[in-house]
Amino acid sequence: MKKVLGWAVCGAVLIGMVGVAYAQFAKPGDAIRYRQAVMTLMGAHFGRIAAVVKGKKPYVKQDVMQNAELVDTLVKLPWDAFLTPGSAHGKTHMRPDVLREKAAFKEMAAKAELEADKLVQASQTGSLDALKSQLGTMAQSCKACHEKFRKH
Amino acid sequence: MKKVLGWAVCGAVLIGMVGVAYAQFAKPGDAIRYRQAVMTLMGAHFGRIAAVVKGKKPYVKQDVMQNAELVDTLVKLPWDAFLTPGSAHGKTHMRPDVLREKAAFKEMAAKAELEADKLVQASQTGSLDALKSQLGTMAQSCKACHEKFRKH
Repeated sequence: MKKVLGWAVCGAVLIGMVGVAYAQFAKPGDAIRYRQAVMTLMGAHFGRIAAVVKGKKPYVKQDVMQNAELVDTLVKLPWDAFLTPGSAHGKTHMRPDVLREKAAFKEMAAKAELEADKLVQASQTGSLDALKSQLGTMAQSCKACHEKFRKH
Repeated sequence: MKKVLGWAVCGAVLIGMVGVAYAQFAKPGDAIRYRQAVMTLMGAHFGRIAAVVKGKKPYVKQDVMQNAELVDTLVKLPWDAFLTPGSAHGKTHMRPDVLREKAAFKEMAAKAELEADKLVQASQTGSLDALKSQLGTMAQSCKACHEKFRKH
């Protein structure tokens, strides 16, 4: 009996720890502001690459690589914030579906991360065509998730 | 005369190029939103380390290192956005002094970047004391700049 209780306590502590590790946001509003900040920066740096691809800015490989690396760093950050309970309400564009369809959301998030990794690789090739192609593919990944999970 | 004109044109083109490289923001409002997003994220990740240092969250070296690296990446981003002409007005906490005292502002920005580098180093030592000390030093650097250049 003692042993069972021991394991039960241990389990509860572990679940508690996971809870602590997960609950990065004290309030749902903090999670909303955090993910919006990530999206603002990701949009800015993605947009700087898009400007090059569209010929509006000169192609400087080093700058494009730096922007791609930033996109790749940023894309890993916001998902927990979207999954924060209570954060579907208030000043947000997130559909509550995110919290109801977590598996589908996480799958799309993982896809975006994968495409960002490939964007970094494309930026390293020095080929503007490769960059253009991968930027388009990643944009499709962003768009698919926004269409499913973002209110307009 | 032709030679002088040639140099003049060349100079104008170079200045134009610098202008293109510099003007990352189409509108002052874009610069404001960008730098606010950086500050939101930097505050969040700095705050996650602060929670560990204050004993509110368990010390997990790997997590702290990751947060320190994010702070170090983020701290390099916002300065151009603060120096964007016209961005002292509107929905911003920035004092117009930033644009009048660019040298002092850039010096404080460089100091913050240096402290963030040291924060990464401290996070790698595995010493909570070293981390606490450097977090405090960096916080002082943030505070000094906010007191001089931020409206409250």
